[in-house]
Amino acid sequence: MTETFSDDRIRQHRTADATVTLTLDGAPLAGREVEIEQTRHKFLFGCTGFELMDHANGTSADPELDARKAEQWEGLFNFATLPFYWGRFEPERGKPATEPLRKAAQWFADRGHPVKGHPLAWHTVSADWLLDLENEEIARVQVERIKREVADFAGVIDMWDVINEVVIMPIFDKYDNGITRICRDIGRIPMVRMVFDAAREAGPDATLLLNDFDMSAAYECLIEGVLEAGVKIDALGLQSHMHQGYWGEEKTEAILDRFSRYGLPIHFTETTIVSGEVMPPEIEDLNDHQVDSWPSTPEGEARQADEIERHYRTLFAHPSVEAITYWGMYDTGMWLGAPGGFIRLDGTPKPSYDRLHHLVNEEWKTPATTLTTDEQGRVRFNGFLGDYSITFGDRGGEFKLVQAGAADLTVDFA
Amino acid sequence: MTETFSDDRIRQHRTADATVTLTLDGAPLAGREVEIEQTRHKFLFGCTGFELMDHANGTSADPELDARKAEQWEGLFNFATLPFYWGRFEPERGKPATEPLRKAAQWFADRGHPVKGHPLAWHTVSADWLLDLENEEIARVQVERIKREVADFAGVIDMWDVINEVVIMPIFDKYDNGITRICRDIGRIPMVRMVFDAAREAGPDATLLLNDFDMSAAYECLIEGVLEAGVKIDALGLQSHMHQGYWGEEKTEAILDRFSRYGLPIHFTETTIVSGEVMPPEIEDLNDHQVDSWPSTPEGEARQADEIERHYRTLFAHPSVEAITYWGMYDTGMWLGAPGGFIRLDGTPKPSYDRLHHLVNEEWKTPATTLTTDEQGRVRFNGFLGDYSITFGDRGGEFKLVQAGAADLTVDFA
Repeated sequence: MTETFSDDRIRQHRTADATVTLTLDGAPLAGREVEIEQTRHKFLFGCTGFELMDHANGTSADPELDARKAEQWEGLFNFATLPFYWGRFEPERGKPATEPLRKAAQWFADRGHPVKGHPLAWHTVSADWLLDLENEEIARVQVERIKREVADFAGVIDMWDVINEVVIMPIFDKYDNGITRICRDIGRIPMVRMVFDAAREAGPDATLLLNDFDMSAAYECLIEGVLEAGVKIDALGLQSHMHQGYWGEEKTEAILDRFSRYGLPIHFTETTIVSGEVMPPEIEDLNDHQVDSWPSTPEGEARQADEIERHYRTLFAHPSVEAITYWGMYDTGMWLGAPGGFIRLDGTPKPSYDRLHHLVNEEWKTPATTLTTDEQGRVRFNGFLGDYSITFGDRGGEFKLVQAGAADLTVDFA
Repeated sequence: MTETFSDDRIRQHRTADATVTLTLDGAPLAGREVEIEQTRHKFLFGCTGFELMDHANGTSADPELDARKAEQWEGLFNFATLPFYWGRFEPERGKPATEPLRKAAQWFADRGHPVKGHPLAWHTVSADWLLDLENEEIARVQVERIKREVADFAGVIDMWDVINEVVIMPIFDKYDNGITRICRDIGRIPMVRMVFDAAREAGPDATLLLNDFDMSAAYECLIEGVLEAGVKIDALGLQSHMHQGYWGEEKTEAILDRFSRYGLPIHFTETTIVSGEVMPPEIEDLNDHQVDSWPSTPEGEARQADEIERHYRTLFAHPSVEAITYWGMYDTGMWLGAPGGFIRLDGTPKPSYDRLHHLVNEEWKTPATTLTTDEQGRVRFNGFLGDYSITFGDRGGEFKLVQAGAADLTVDFA
């Protein structure tokens, strides 16, 4: 795939040819200068927001550092994923840590960034107290837990990774846990149906995802079974942790080809590309690779910047992809201690930061532009999908480009 | 797993504690000597019967050799798989090679050996003329083909691998073929439903199998989806080509554990264990390993005999397994030229032949035994499941042990 090809597809799928008719009190505003500016992407450039929990809650140990982190975060992203791991969210039954999560979610929401909760059901980091319950009771509290979180956060979090890693869930054998027990007992599809029914009931308008790391035919078969069983999935989550090396365009395209067959939006939910040595290929479960130190290196950082650019170009060029969530902004506190962030341990940005910043804020964003209306009061331009402001003197308006292709809009400055 | 453990399980799952009451014209036959003998196994010890097609059709180039092969075949097996690869069965549309298959199937049936047809739908060795058809037409002729074969062979072949390797079917990319096209078009589960509906309609009492080589969670997910969709599967087919080395008990047990969860009978449909060098582990598609010569070696033959014994012991000890089909009796004409047979190129048996012969005909078969009836005319014995003859002087009778556990039967010599 050449860059030209991907650029063509990006233009085709991510921009609209807009005709905006401007009126003042209903009359065409002919022959006047107006300024348009894109204020938001429609595409979800996402990242974990775990690291800004303290900042959002006003409980920072180092407020200055955290404020800088928040600024760095917003320099790249418009979409946050927040942690709802059951074992951490409700370590003691009946005492969920709802408030700090609500404040964090509200912080992002106040800035216009949609928030996704991750995950509502998963066999890893699940609550230990489930182990004392009978399977029927585990299923019941799992359903209640989902309804509680979806209802409690409605209006602030309206997107959920409802269930995570179902392919391996019933045969996961690293340690005993309540979720594997019930999934093995009732089967994968009834499990997915149960948790989606609960989430749908509590949040009829929420966007509900199935999420998995397994990119093999197993996930395809699971998806086909779930869809045939009539469970409505709003988007497919594909993890893409690349601790063992960047996939490359060919593999990524093949995955997109296989998983776009279902006509569902695709979210790349968990992307990691490291700026140090890559993990040996023989590791099957990434959790098995525990190292004392995993440094970011200059060569690694140059490679990471290239690979992140290539990955984002490939995904942004594919019409099924609606979101990319990067799995950790900062090397501090990253999963497995991997140097996978955009920001080094010392707080300085890596080349990947500038590279993605350029793509998101320049190459793929319509810059502030002055246009002159024609005799019918129209301006025409090709712009990236998203929200726009338009100003005429001291009057301002807004519009959205929501769909690729031709868009006809009217803005009245009355 | 110790041999003792597997022996215990074999006794538990494969034998019955029989009490047979013998009567003569309705009156108990007390205090008399009778002889019982097992004449057939309930368990299906199967093999491909491809190589006996000429013998069965009376078209042998070497009738003496083929007669010896037939004798060797029947020394081990009681269940045959015959080839229905569409591209070979009907290379020209409308001219199926029904007759030679019918004669071959009849030959086995006449000897009391049930026959399975393999396969009715598969993307490999499919008919080239499908490539000229629209997808809708391919689906239509696939359905008709299934109905035709199942109806044409009813009474002689009543067991079918209805569809083969569905996990990879829609993403198979080695070459274009009609079956991958329609599977990709309609999806795996609708494909399975379509071919099973056709087979069920034409053969309501036939035993219908889903068969795959993929032993990963992908096949589990497929099975769960198919079952959730309400498609009735009579038995699960698990291939077990071990050109890359014997799986070992632990892996085999884990597979049995995972695939027995569905409560369906399991057939090990395609077992190969080589008596020469094993194929390198990095080969993903076994078809990619093409060698000029792949000799059977003395060390390889000793190892093969051990491994075949271990494999059959593991499977015979598991209550879900109802059949094991070995994929090739003779090294001549084996898939990939592998030395996987029981009979060498020169026609002599390998150690594996004697080993399996011992298991099937001695260790796991109830020998001819003379028993004396008690005062109520009863004899008691523990016997392997299957068909039995019983003789009293010059009078003979028959009975069957069909289920493990206690069995109470009456045979009247009238």
